[in-house]
Amino acid sequence: MIIVLKAGASEADIEDVSRRVRDLGFKTHLSRGEERTIIGVVGDDRAKEQLLALQALESVENVVRILQPFKLASREAHPESTQFRIHGVPIGGKQLVVMAGPCSVESRPQLLAVAEGVKAGGAHVLRGGAFKPRTSPYAFQGLEEEGLKLLHEASKATGLPVVTEVMEPDKVDVVAEHADILQVGARNIQNFSLLKRVAECGKPVLLKRGMSSSIQEWLLSAEYVLAGGNPNVILCERGIRTFETSTRFTLDLNAIPVVKKLSHLPVLVDPSHGTGHWEYVSAMAKAGLAAGADGLIIEVHNNPAEALSDGPQSLKPDKFGKLMSELRPLAEVLGRSL
Amino acid sequence: MIIVLKAGASEADIEDVSRRVRDLGFKTHLSRGEERTIIGVVGDDRAKEQLLALQALESVENVVRILQPFKLASREAHPESTQFRIHGVPIGGKQLVVMAGPCSVESRPQLLAVAEGVKAGGAHVLRGGAFKPRTSPYAFQGLEEEGLKLLHEASKATGLPVVTEVMEPDKVDVVAEHADILQVGARNIQNFSLLKRVAECGKPVLLKRGMSSSIQEWLLSAEYVLAGGNPNVILCERGIRTFETSTRFTLDLNAIPVVKKLSHLPVLVDPSHGTGHWEYVSAMAKAGLAAGADGLIIEVHNNPAEALSDGPQSLKPDKFGKLMSELRPLAEVLGRSL
Amino acid sequence: MIIVLKAGASEADIEDVSRRVRDLGFKTHLSRGEERTIIGVVGDDRAKEQLLALQALESVENVVRILQPFKLASREAHPESTQFRIHGVPIGGKQLVVMAGPCSVESRPQLLAVAEGVKAGGAHVLRGGAFKPRTSPYAFQGLEEEGLKLLHEASKATGLPVVTEVMEPDKVDVVAEHADILQVGARNIQNFSLLKRVAECGKPVLLKRGMSSSIQEWLLSAEYVLAGGNPNVILCERGIRTFETSTRFTLDLNAIPVVKKLSHLPVLVDPSHGTGHWEYVSAMAKAGLAAGADGLIIEVHNNPAEALSDGPQSLKPDKFGKLMSELRPLAEVLGRSL
Amino acid sequence: MIIVLKAGASEADIEDVSRRVRDLGFKTHLSRGEERTIIGVVGDDRAKEQLLALQALESVENVVRILQPFKLASREAHPESTQFRIHGVPIGGKQLVVMAGPCSVESRPQLLAVAEGVKAGGAHVLRGGAFKPRTSPYAFQGLEEEGLKLLHEASKATGLPVVTEVMEPDKVDVVAEHADILQVGARNIQNFSLLKRVAECGKPVLLKRGMSSSIQEWLLSAEYVLAGGNPNVILCERGIRTFETSTRFTLDLNAIPVVKKLSHLPVLVDPSHGTGHWEYVSAMAKAGLAAGADGLIIEVHNNPAEALSDGPQSLKPDKFGKLMSELRPLAEVLGRSL
Repeated sequence: MIIVLKAGASEADIEDVSRRVRDLGFKTHLSRGEERTIIGVVGDDRAKEQLLALQALESVENVVRILQPFKLASREAHPESTQFRIHGVPIGGKQLVVMAGPCSVESRPQLLAVAEGVKAGGAHVLRGGAFKPRTSPYAFQGLEEEGLKLLHEASKATGLPVVTEVMEPDKVDVVAEHADILQVGARNIQNFSLLKRVAECGKPVLLKRGMSSSIQEWLLSAEYVLAGGNPNVILCERGIRTFETSTRFTLDLNAIPVVKKLSHLPVLVDPSHGTGHWEYVSAMAKAGLAAGADGLIIEVHNNPAEALSDGPQSLKPDKFGKLMSELRPLAEVLGRSL
Repeated sequence: MIIVLKAGASEADIEDVSRRVRDLGFKTHLSRGEERTIIGVVGDDRAKEQLLALQALESVENVVRILQPFKLASREAHPESTQFRIHGVPIGGKQLVVMAGPCSVESRPQLLAVAEGVKAGGAHVLRGGAFKPRTSPYAFQGLEEEGLKLLHEASKATGLPVVTEVMEPDKVDVVAEHADILQVGARNIQNFSLLKRVAECGKPVLLKRGMSSSIQEWLLSAEYVLAGGNPNVILCERGIRTFETSTRFTLDLNAIPVVKKLSHLPVLVDPSHGTGHWEYVSAMAKAGLAAGADGLIIEVHNNPAEALSDGPQSLKPDKFGKLMSELRPLAEVLGRSL
Repeated sequence: MIIVLKAGASEADIEDVSRRVRDLGFKTHLSRGEERTIIGVVGDDRAKEQLLALQALESVENVVRILQPFKLASREAHPESTQFRIHGVPIGGKQLVVMAGPCSVESRPQLLAVAEGVKAGGAHVLRGGAFKPRTSPYAFQGLEEEGLKLLHEASKATGLPVVTEVMEPDKVDVVAEHADILQVGARNIQNFSLLKRVAECGKPVLLKRGMSSSIQEWLLSAEYVLAGGNPNVILCERGIRTFETSTRFTLDLNAIPVVKKLSHLPVLVDPSHGTGHWEYVSAMAKAGLAAGADGLIIEVHNNPAEALSDGPQSLKPDKFGKLMSELRPLAEVLGRSL
Repeated sequence: MIIVLKAGASEADIEDVSRRVRDLGFKTHLSRGEERTIIGVVGDDRAKEQLLALQALESVENVVRILQPFKLASREAHPESTQFRIHGVPIGGKQLVVMAGPCSVESRPQLLAVAEGVKAGGAHVLRGGAFKPRTSPYAFQGLEEEGLKLLHEASKATGLPVVTEVMEPDKVDVVAEHADILQVGARNIQNFSLLKRVAECGKPVLLKRGMSSSIQEWLLSAEYVLAGGNPNVILCERGIRTFETSTRFTLDLNAIPVVKKLSHLPVLVDPSHGTGHWEYVSAMAKAGLAAGADGLIIEVHNNPAEALSDGPQSLKPDKFGKLMSELRPLAEVLGRSL
């Protein structure tokens, strides 16, 4: 970091701030400009949030961060892209991954029908929510553990590994028992208690970007999981909140090349939440891959108009199959495979 | 809600959608315009999120919500403003409430010094964090249960009731044991597992607006607590995320008159998080009261430049005292007291 | 539009509002729900902004727009996609268009070198700014009419038609004299005096989305040009302003399928402004085409580190050529050609 | 500014960048940290936007601005707050100013009635639009020069000086002939041609913040007017665009103390546009003054439900009078007068 002193800072001010920096274990480098004096902090200050408190001093104008504050998630510390396999499904390499399924697990017949449909379309992983974060307390809240069992059954029936959301630390064990990937949803991106618990669960974690998370904050949330001992983190861009109301969120595809530059972690795109309308899913799925994503997560339902959640953004299985057939030649042109 | 059909919807489409609405338990009212046919849903549809799924139909252009989706939190259902007392401190009436204290409980001497300072300045409630949600895993994470005990001690020493944050369902009991008000922080505004648990804790809940929560979503989160049986909810505006970077967040004071119109719940303003800089806290504390807030929550630290969190936005006790002396005549002019 | 009355609106209120609607030339359709009475406005109200003033009545809760407020720009009124040619370059059809060149025209040698470079790479249109909207009054403001002449010369030398920005009504004639397409920049999207003037200039108009324009507002700005008699409008998504700071703007590719659904106008993507960093331009150019855009506009400079504007987001000619060679097979897979 | 080199930058890279900085007329100061080398630019670089182009170099990670980029608008360069008088009305001192009147001048009787109403309520300046920037081409576009004459007549009748918007450079002279203050609206905040022309008009300029302007950009737009020779600039916060839809804009009152710290210019608040609903105007007018604004600009209409623009946010004259009577004691408590 560098510390910018206010115009007119005295020698005593400079010495006071410098001493405080040294007391935190760093060396200082002084630079006197014509307009401002700047104190450079020498040393690896990425983890030293406490330097920011120096902004509280009357003599300090600003404390400016130079290094990204995450370490384990950074490509600088780990130049090779992370790759791993989940029940044989490769994540993060040349091969793209597509996760698909209903927003919510609603019933045994619904789930099995959709699971067969997405399997037929070529999905590699089955998604489905058992614990559902719903904005309204009066909306369907998910089948909970019954839903987990149905996911397990659908996984056995289709051979597809399962990703499902976990919403609280106490449920991590039971979810990890039935699922192959644990999803931390956008609303829990800064639920640090949950992040610490999934770090210990031994299963890969799908970490959705929060709707108001900066890319830096998102990677710091990944850092919680990595620092807790779990290297298998998959990021997922799913749209941020902006002033535009014609779509549910604004899918920030800029985030894909930015994350690829800053981090070694694989990153997916969720065009279903990112748009909120099934009519836009196909275009944005293609755009996500073209931007460089390592895969997609897509909501599919056999009867969207009666879905208990997210019907408007769900594809029917036949539309999903058609999309997959369009994505395959696209993947090839992009130097990937699907 | 009203359902807007696409231009060119056929009679069969109209009948199909109407039947679906009736199957969900509502009557319909058909309105044929020159450009669009509209199906009005007759009945109390506030809790019927499932009507939204009809947007998935090819014949439907849009489903438009007419009523606010919350009920218990609405002023329509509960015209009188909510008022209650916490250890004698009135909330929500003519008397304004000021909660103050450090961002984090760091040590016994620190907390006791600040508690005495804010008590001397005229605060009514002591704030302080024991469990700390920190963006970086390398930042100070709070003293946890040791911090709760120190808060309890400081409360006894000063006579001030205590508000502190709870971050996960499992900790609700221990926090409720030591604190008088449970804070749900901005990052947990849609941690629905937590909302359901604090609804059962028997203590008032301070519900901070999320940094990307719409006012409607914020009141739906309050609805979770109210619907769970806890009527003592205090809302708190603390800034939303926008493109402006010269302050940490954008304090949305418009939210105060909007919430006062839509809801009966008391609402506070947090000018510390809302600006991120101690130099702006005084102006925005005054603005918050002038906008009609029922009180303030302010960060105070005896040594901000060495604070383990949020130093830059913390007032020193003497500055807090000066602010309080300026707020008293302001409150009077506004028809309130402090 | 529909007019939602407040709970408890009286018969007199209903009659008062209905009469006002009829006085504006519409029929009304009354719908009494259990919670609210709604007055539907029957007739083509797209152009009747004045109905919105009824929100000022104490008995009115809200006025909700049902139809999009633009007409000439809408696909509903004009189902066929607009296609036209500029000096033989097709716009809006199967063939994609790429416009490229420097942010600013800086000198004769610079412009000619870049123009040859982008021509060699396969660009169809030369871009370059002569009148420059600069945030700081101390920044380079463009070569103005001298720049226009250089563009004209570069156009003759390369055979590429030219697009350049016009910033004020008074300059429309001189710009139209030298350029083949007039660009209205993001900062002038609601400069209605300018929109009215370019509507009369007889040349195609490239209309960049404003950094805080909703898609609806953007199409209303297009409506100004169309209503003024100029059918040849090209839209261009160039990024909106959000809280994310790791890129200059957030490129809203969702806007591409949304615009394609709502409007018949061709739409381009500007990955240079949309990201602000040359390292991200290639990924987002591909993503833009995959999302369904009709082409791209890309900044290219022969010496970005000494560019007088937008150096950081400019590609060198060789990188532009490499990108074009990657875009060609991509276009084919997408069913387009380049 | 400081230039942060990428990890692994070579000695040749350092020398290359340093030479480029020196070629632009600055000295350099080198600081080698453990993780990054930083090149400090020594000299007044506020006006040197071109240093930013160095980000285009492969060896450069980032160029970080240390000084605010405006000079004449900065409090650093001009510590005393700017004060001036318009026909005897003091701006920027202890005395607050209130500007009020209709959004649009619609007719002679309407304008005279409202002008008398706001005069009776205690307004100091009459506002009213003759040239109207309207989102839709089908909306009322203003009475134009006829409106200017009516404003002049109303000014004579009431003794109130007049503020009105100018939308294009060519109209600056005619507007300046009839008005006492020229308003540059939010949509024209980066219409630099217009800013340059109003700088030469010899009349004070009211400069509204753009709906997506950062505070820094807003002050740079003020810098255009100041640098053009016009010292009498009045800033006006009128709301920014965010995700919140329950108000028309989000009034950013944080901007008031920030502007007061960074700049010497007077700043007003517009609670009418800032909320979009007359019911919220009173609360936010008070909040604006409490935040430290130097005055207000408020829309007043004698018949809001039939207003040709902005009816929903307009106060009736009696409500305006009541608000003024509440603002007077508030001003006093704040150490101001009204």
